Amino acid sequence: MTKNRIEAFSDGVFAIIITIMVLEFKIPHSSSIKELVHLLPIFISYLMSFVYVGIYWANHHHLLHTVEKVTSAIIWSNMGLLFFLSLIPFTTGWMGENHFDTIPVVVYAVNLLLSGVAFYILQNVIMSGITHRTKLIEALEKQKVKGIASIIIYSLAIPCAYFSTIVSAILFALVSIMWIIPDKNVEKALED
Amino acid sequence: MTKNRIEAFSDGVFAIIITIMVLEFKIPHSSSIKELVHLLPIFISYLMSFVYVGIYWANHHHLLHTVEKVTSAIIWSNMGLLFFLSLIPFTTGWMGENHFDTIPVVVYAVNLLLSGVAFYILQNVIMSGITHRTKLIEALEKQKVKGIASIIIYSLAIPCAYFSTIVSAILFALVSIMWIIPDKNVEKALED
Amino acid sequence: MTKNRIEAFSDGVFAIIITIMVLEFKIPHSSSIKELVHLLPIFISYLMSFVYVGIYWANHHHLLHTVEKVTSAIIWSNMGLLFFLSLIPFTTGWMGENHFDTIPVVVYAVNLLLSGVAFYILQNVIMSGITHRTKLIEALEKQKVKGIASIIIYSLAIPCAYFSTIVSAILFALVSIMWIIPDKNVEKALED
Amino acid sequence: MTKNRIEAFSDGVFAIIITIMVLEFKIPHSSSIKELVHLLPIFISYLMSFVYVGIYWANHHHLLHTVEKVTSAIIWSNMGLLFFLSLIPFTTGWMGENHFDTIPVVVYAVNLLLSGVAFYILQNVIMSGITHRTKLIEALEKQKVKGIASIIIYSLAIPCAYFSTIVSAILFALVSIMWIIPDKNVEKALED
Repeated sequence: MTKNRIEAFSDGVFAIIITIMVLEFKIPHSSSIKELVHLLPIFISYLMSFVYVGIYWANHHHLLHTVEKVTSAIIWSNMGLLFFLSLIPFTTGWMGENHFDTIPVVVYAVNLLLSGVAFYILQNVIMSGITHRTKLIEALEKQKVKGIASIIIYSLAIPCAYFSTIVSAILFALVSIMWIIPDKNVEKALED
Repeated sequence: MTKNRIEAFSDGVFAIIITIMVLEFKIPHSSSIKELVHLLPIFISYLMSFVYVGIYWANHHHLLHTVEKVTSAIIWSNMGLLFFLSLIPFTTGWMGENHFDTIPVVVYAVNLLLSGVAFYILQNVIMSGITHRTKLIEALEKQKVKGIASIIIYSLAIPCAYFSTIVSAILFALVSIMWIIPDKNVEKALED
Repeated sequence: MTKNRIEAFSDGVFAIIITIMVLEFKIPHSSSIKELVHLLPIFISYLMSFVYVGIYWANHHHLLHTVEKVTSAIIWSNMGLLFFLSLIPFTTGWMGENHFDTIPVVVYAVNLLLSGVAFYILQNVIMSGITHRTKLIEALEKQKVKGIASIIIYSLAIPCAYFSTIVSAILFALVSIMWIIPDKNVEKALED
Repeated sequence: MTKNRIEAFSDGVFAIIITIMVLEFKIPHSSSIKELVHLLPIFISYLMSFVYVGIYWANHHHLLHTVEKVTSAIIWSNMGLLFFLSLIPFTTGWMGENHFDTIPVVVYAVNLLLSGVAFYILQNVIMSGITHRTKLIEALEKQKVKGIASIIIYSLAIPCAYFSTIVSAILFALVSIMWIIPDKNVEKALED
C-alpha cells in the first residue's frame, strides 16, 4: 500500500523540522547560568514552534488516515505543506534571535499563515477524492472551521505585530490551545 | 518483505536532503527586512531544489512500487541515485550564495544531469528484473522518454550557462514543469 | 493501524537526536593527535547521552507495543517526552564543552529529570487506556519502580553537582547501568 | 511485530549518518572553480564513507531479516554498531580536511575496525538466537569469513598509515570492493 510511503516521508520531514530547530541553541563557551538566560527568547520560540509542528503532525496523521488512493494532487499539495513547514526553523530562529522584534514576528506569522493555507488545500484535495463516509471523515470535515479560524487569526497577528508583538504572541498561543484541546468528534471517531 | 527497508532508508535520505537545505538560510543577527532580501537568491535556489527532490521522491515512490525482489544491483543503483541527490544541498547552496554565477550554475546542472542518469540506471535495473506486466510498469516504461528528455535538457543547460544563466534556469524550470504535470498513464495505472 | 505513525515519527526524532550530537565534534583543522585529546570530554558526554537516548528508545519501543488506540493524550504526552529529549544534544554539548563544570552538569541533570518525569507521565497515560492484560504489560507495570528510582537519583544528582560533579556523574552512570541490565520480566514477556 | 521498529530506528540513523557528512562541504563564498578543487579531498573521503555506510546498511538489511525475536542483547549490540558508525562523519571530515594525513587516516581505520567488530558481535548475537535454518542464514554464516577478513585488513591499515597512507587507502578500497561484489550465496538465498 503506497500510503505508507507518503506517511514515512512526511514523518521523516516532520521529525527533522522539529529537531533541527535545536541546532539554533548555539552552545555557549562559558558555563555561567547567564548564558541560559540569554538563550531564553530562543527557548520560548523553540517551544512555540515545537508545539505548532506537533499540532500539524497530529492533524496530518488523522488526515492521511482517510486517504484511499495517493494521487499526484495529494503528493504535491503535501509537498506544499512540507515546504512551508520546512521554513519554520528559520523563521523561529530569526524571531528568537531578535527577541520577538516586529519584522521577524510578522514573517513568522506569514509562515504560519501559509502553512495553514497549505494544510487547508491538502485537506480539500484529500477530502475531494474520498468516496466513502466514515465517522473520522465527518469529524475532520467539521474541523475545517478550526482551520479557517486559525488562518483568520494568523492574518490578524500580522498587522497586530506592528503595534504590539505581545498581542501577536497571544494570538499564536490562542491558535495552539484551540488545537491542543482534544476534538471530541475526532476522539470519538478514533475510538470506534 | 524486504522492500520496506529500501523504501524506509531512501525516504529517510530524501527527507534529510530536502530539509538540510534549510540550514543554508543562516539566521541574520539584525531584524531588518533587508536581511530577507539578501536571502532571496538562496530562497529561490532552495525552492527549485525542493521541487526537484520532490519530483525524484514521487518518481522513486512509483518506481519502487514495481520492485518484486530487492537484489544487490537494485541496492547499489539506488545508492548511486542517493549519492548524487545528497550533493544537491551543497550545489544549491553554492548557486544561491553566489547569485546564480556561471560556474555554480554549471555545477548544479552537472549535479542534476548525474542524478538524472543515476535514476535512469536504477529504472533500467529495476525494470530488467520484472517478470510480470502491470499497467503501472507499462506507464513507467513510457515515462522513460521523459527521463531521457530531462537528461538532454540538463546537458544543454551546461553550455548555455556560459552565455546566459537565465536560459539555464529556464531549462531547469522546464524540466520540473514537465514532471509536475501529472502523467495520465501513471495516474490511470494507480487508479486501478 | 495508526500506531505505526506515532512509532515512525518518534523513531525519526530519536534517530535525529542521537545523531545530531555528533555535530558537536567540530572538526579540528590540524591533524595532531592532541586535537583528539581536547575532544575527550565532548566524547565522554556524547557516549553518556547516546546510551541514555538508547535506553529511552528501547523502553519507548516496549511501551508503545502495548498501546491499543492512539489518543490525543498519548500523542501529546509523547510530544512532551520528545521535547525534553530534544534538548539533550544541547545540554550534552554544553556539559562536554565546559569539562563537566557545575552549572552545565546541573542543567544536564535537570534535563534528564524532566525526561524521566515525561516518560513516567507517558507510561501512565498509556497504561490507563489499556483494557486487556498481557505479560508485557505486567512486566512494564513492575518496571515503574525503576522509573521512580531514576527520577529520585536524578534529583539527588542536582544538589550533588554543587559539591562534586564526579558524584553526579557516578549517579548518572548508576541509572544507565540499572536500565541496561536486561529486565527478566520484560525479557520473559517478549519471549512468549 | 517489533522487528519493524529496530529496523526503522536503524534506517533513520543510517540515513542521517550518510547525509550529515554532506554538511562538511562548507559552501565557498567565491564562485571560482578552484574552490571545488580545494574540496576534492573532502569529496573523496565523503565518497569512500558513503560507500562504507551503504555496505553496512545493505548487510544490516540482510542480517536483521533473519531475526525472529528482538531481545535486549540485539538492541544493545545494534546500538553499539550505530555508535561507532555515528563517528564516521567526524573521522571522515577530519581525514578529508587534513588531506589524508597519517593520524586522521589511523583514526579513520580505527573507526572502521571498531565498526567491523561491532557488526561481527551483532551478527553473532543474532545468529545465536536463531532456532530455524534458512538458506539466507547459511549464506550469512559463510559471509562471516568476509567480516573477519575486513577486520584483519583494517588492522593492517593502521600500522601501514605510518609508512604510506596511500597503502592504507588501497586497503580500505579493497575491503569495499570485496563487499560490493554481490555474494552469490546471499543472492541465491534472496531469490528463493
